[in-house]
Amino acid sequence: MPMVRIDHTRRDDPDFAGKASETVRSALETAFSVPREDFFQVVTAHEFGSGLFGPQRFLDIEHTQDLVFVQITCATGRSKEQKIALFQAISSGLAGETGMRPDDVIINLVENQRENWSFGRGEAPFA
Amino acid sequence: MPMVRIDHTRRDDPDFAGKASETVRSALETAFSVPREDFFQVVTAHEFGSGLFGPQRFLDIEHTQDLVFVQITCATGRSKEQKIALFQAISSGLAGETGMRPDDVIINLVENQRENWSFGRGEAPFA
Amino acid sequence: MPMVRIDHTRRDDPDFAGKASETVRSALETAFSVPREDFFQVVTAHEFGSGLFGPQRFLDIEHTQDLVFVQITCATGRSKEQKIALFQAISSGLAGETGMRPDDVIINLVENQRENWSFGRGEAPFA
Repeated sequence: MPMVRIDHTRRDDPDFAGKASETVRSALETAFSVPREDFFQVVTAHEFGSGLFGPQRFLDIEHTQDLVFVQITCATGRSKEQKIALFQAISSGLAGETGMRPDDVIINLVENQRENWSFGRGEAPFA
Repeated sequence: MPMVRIDHTRRDDPDFAGKASETVRSALETAFSVPREDFFQVVTAHEFGSGLFGPQRFLDIEHTQDLVFVQITCATGRSKEQKIALFQAISSGLAGETGMRPDDVIINLVENQRENWSFGRGEAPFA
Repeated sequence: MPMVRIDHTRRDDPDFAGKASETVRSALETAFSVPREDFFQVVTAHEFGSGLFGPQRFLDIEHTQDLVFVQITCATGRSKEQKIALFQAISSGLAGETGMRPDDVIINLVENQRENWSFGRGEAPFA
C-alpha cells in the first residue's frame, strides 16, 4: 500500500536506485508488516544545489551533499514505535547497502485512508 | 483543486503524457465534479527497474512493466462511492486511450483541507 | 520540517531553481516560523504541455505557460492566517526574485503529524 518517492544525488551510481528501492521495501516489510509484493516506488537522481536542496546542519545532525529524501505515502494506523522502527531500518539499511551516512537519510510519512488506494483495474480493495 | 502526479514507463511514446493528463482530468470532472479548468499536473517518464519500481503481482492482480502511478492530492470530503468511481474512470480511461492494461494502473489519493490551496496571486479562495 | 517539491517550466534559466528554493525557504521562515536550516527541497523543470499541465484560467485567475507548482509537506497546526501569509510570501517572493507573474504560482500544503519526520540517523525528534 505504501507509495514511495526516493530523491537522491548519486547520479553517477547506477546501482543506487535498486539498492535504495529494496532497502526501503524491506524496511516497510519489517517495521510496518507490509507484504513483500506491496511496493510502488519512484526513484529520481538530482544534482545537489540545482535539483535537490538541503542544509549543512539541522537540529544536531550534520548533512553532506550525499543526501537522500524518502517520502512514503501510506495508510494511517501505525504507532510511534513502528514509525521509529521504520526510520531506523531505512537509515541503517541505506547506510549498510550503499555506504552513505545514516545522518544523510531524511524521511517523512504522509498518511491517508485505506479506501484511497487502487492497485489495478480500478478496484478499491480496502474501501 | 486536485494536483496530480503521473509517473509512467512509456518513455518512447510522446503522446502518452497528454493522453494520461486529459484522461485523469476528465475522470476527476466526472467522478469528483472537479471544474474543467481545475487541473494541475506533473507527468514524468521513468525506466522500469531503475526509476520506477513495482511488483509482478499484488493481491490478485498481475502487473507488467507498463505500469503507471497516479497520485492525486485533493481536498477531503469525497465519499467511498466517488473514490471508486474515480478509480474506475481513470483505469478504464487510460486503458481506452493508451491501450495499457487496466491492471497496471495504480492510484492513490492524498487528502488535505480546502484552505491549503492557492491558485495564483497568493490568494486562498477556499480559506 | 517542511519538505518542498517545486515543479516549473523555466528549463532554460539555470538560476531559477536556486532562487525558487531560497524564496520558498524564506517564506516558510517568515510565515510559519520554520528554522532557517530546516529546508528539504526538490526542484524539477518540465516542458509545458508534455511534463507540466495546467489551465489557461481557473477561478478568476489567468495562467500562462510560465507556471510553477509548489507542494509543501509540513506538520499540521498552522492557522488559516499563517497559510495565507505563506501563500502571499511565496507568490510575491517568486515574482520579485524571478520576474514571473504572481498569478502563475500554484501552491498546496499536505499536512502530517510531527512524529512522521526523521532528519537523519533514523531519529524521530518530534515523536
